[in-house]
Parts: sequence; structure tokens; C-alpha cells
Amino acid sequence: MTTEAAGRRVRRPSGGAASLLEVAVAEFNTRGYDATSMEDLSRAAGITKSSFYHHFTGKEALLRAALERALSGLFGVLDEPAATTGTPLARLRHIVRGQVAVLQRDLPYVTLLLRVRGNTESERWALARRRAFDAQIAALVKEAVAAGEIRPGVEPALAARLLSGLVNSVVEWYRPGRPGTANLPDDVARAVFEGILPAAG
Amino acid sequence: MTTEAAGRRVRRPSGGAASLLEVAVAEFNTRGYDATSMEDLSRAAGITKSSFYHHFTGKEALLRAALERALSGLFGVLDEPAATTGTPLARLRHIVRGQVAVLQRDLPYVTLLLRVRGNTESERWALARRRAFDAQIAALVKEAVAAGEIRPGVEPALAARLLSGLVNSVVEWYRPGRPGTANLPDDVARAVFEGILPAAG
Repeated sequence: MTTEAAGRRVRRPSGGAASLLEVAVAEFNTRGYDATSMEDLSRAAGITKSSFYHHFTGKEALLRAALERALSGLFGVLDEPAATTGTPLARLRHIVRGQVAVLQRDLPYVTLLLRVRGNTESERWALARRRAFDAQIAALVKEAVAAGEIRPGVEPALAARLLSGLVNSVVEWYRPGRPGTANLPDDVARAVFEGILPAAG
Repeated sequence: MTTEAAGRRVRRPSGGAASLLEVAVAEFNTRGYDATSMEDLSRAAGITKSSFYHHFTGKEALLRAALERALSGLFGVLDEPAATTGTPLARLRHIVRGQVAVLQRDLPYVTLLLRVRGNTESERWALARRRAFDAQIAALVKEAVAAGEIRPGVEPALAARLLSGLVNSVVEWYRPGRPGTANLPDDVARAVFEGILPAAG
């Protein structure tokens, strides 16, 4: 924090670039990226605009950094040993659990990522990365079906879409500490592989 | 269509209130409700603003009519005989299939409904109706669990959220005539009750 900002009774302590990013993501998610100005951001962070520019060149740089964080978390899961070795189905199970865990850990960042519509360069980049992520999972679903690991009749492309839809829908309602979400990664994985409402017996 | 509008080489034929609603919903979904003006709407419909006001008192009346259409479709499913009689699990299966069918039939209307955030009176009304719809389904899930129809370990509230998330996610990618979606209601129901990726054997 600069001395200048410190003298202004900051509303929120600023720990540098990381916490500015956190503030910015919260504003983007609340107001929408397009509707958020650098004034809004510096006000929310409790620092001057010039202090803000010390860390980030502007609004789009913040968006880019936020989207990078969400994407590196998600792609990180695909690189984990349990996601790269083993049967396709076991790898998928690991990935689903990992995706949900990233979504819980980086909730505001993933929320922002999922709302991106492609209006800026960074948004288009993020959309392309999301597509690449989904394509890797769709390929793995196809592999699992081809290997006979999945019950006959499951259409890989549709299954991949429903999988992505189910996992991503969690950002709509999940909040840290929400009751009944202690084992969310396992619970979502079970819903994917056994059903949300599996019949007894 | 008024004679005045007919003389203006309309871009799109207007069949009265119904087709104006269709045009408005498309604009709301593309631009966002808040960003859409009556000018945008009359331009898109190819009629004058005064012709537009002949059918609807304003933008919010259009929003309300569109949300009513989506909600009456969805609540209509809950009133069907197969949704009100039989075991909770059978009723849920019917409802899931019906929900997906409504979503396919009234895609733009349901899309609009699912994007509502509560900024206007009509939006708050729609959000309350959505919550009532979800609550009815959550109650039915609870009944199915209590009746022992669902495999042990499924937490009703979480299952209801995942169910709603999975079904609603379909609006993100479904488009009429999309290959592989001929049996979408059955396919989504199967995903809900047997798993998106059920293991073979």
C-alpha cells in the first residue's frame, strides 16, 4: 500500500496486487465487467486510481489476471497424475472432483469465467481456453465410451455437455460454509456417475 | 400490423402481440433487459413505437408477459396428471422430462427467466415463482428419499439443487434442431436417474 493510500483511511486493507484482484473480481461479478469503472474499483479497494495503476495497467489487465487464475486452477486439475494415468473413467472421476474443488476454492474467479461472453480480447481468449478445457473432457468421455466403461446408449457429446452443465451450475448457489457442502466434490462426482436421484435397490 | 407500419417495409412480419413478444424476448436475451429500449424493440419489430404501445404498455409489460409464458409452461408440467399421481420418483421422472420439453419449446422465454436477477418488480415476481417451482420439486425429492425410493446417502436439498442446475444448464447450449437432441427429455431424465456417465456392467 502506498503512503498516500494509507493516509486515506482505507475501507479494506490492501495487500498489493493479489487483494486488488480480489476486490476487482467481486466488483465485476456484482456490477458486470462492462459496467465497472476504474473509479469503482479504486473506491472499492480504498486506494487511489494511481495506486491501482501501479499494480495493473487497467481494467482489462485485471480481467485477464482473474480469468487466468480461474483457468490455471481448472487446467491444473487436468495435469494432475490421477487425471493423466489410469482408465478414462477413473481419470474423469478425478477431474470432476478436482473441478468442483477448484470451483469452491476460487469461486469468484470461476464465476467470472463462466459469465464471460466474448466482448473483449481477454474474454475471447478465456472462451477459447474454456472450449479447450471442455474438449479435453469430451475426448476423455469419448474414450471411456469407446473402451466400454460406460453403459451403452450414452452419447459422448451430450454426456460431456451435461457434465459441464452440472458441474458449472454449482457456482449459482454454492457459498463457502453452506451447510451440506462439506463433501461437495464427492457428492457431485456421485451424481455424475450414479445419478442425482439414483433409484434404491 | 398497422397500415403505417406496413408502409415502412417491415423487416419482419408482425402478427400482433404474440410476435412482438417474440421479438422483444430475442432483444432482451441479446442486449440484456436493462440495455434494451422501446426504440430498440420497435426497430427490431419493424413497427413504430406507437404501434408497439398499442399492444403493450411498455418494456416491463413485455418482460412480464415473457416471464409469465416461461413460468406457465413450467408450472403446467407440475399440474399434469403424471406429475400429481404415482410414486414420488415416477412423478419426478415425468417432471424432469416435462421441464426439458418446455425448455426446448419455449427456449428464449426460459432463457430470459433463468437470467432474471431481480432488478424490477416483474423480475422479483418471477424469482419468487422460480423459488416456488424449485421448492415443489425439492419437496418431492424429499418425499422420494423418505419413501426409500432413492439410494441411501443422497441428501435431498443438494440433490434438488443439482437437479435444477443440470436441467437449466441445457439452455446454455441447446438450439432447435441441434444434432443429438431428438430425445433430449429422455436423455436428461436418464442422466438424472442413472448418471451422466453410468459405469457399464
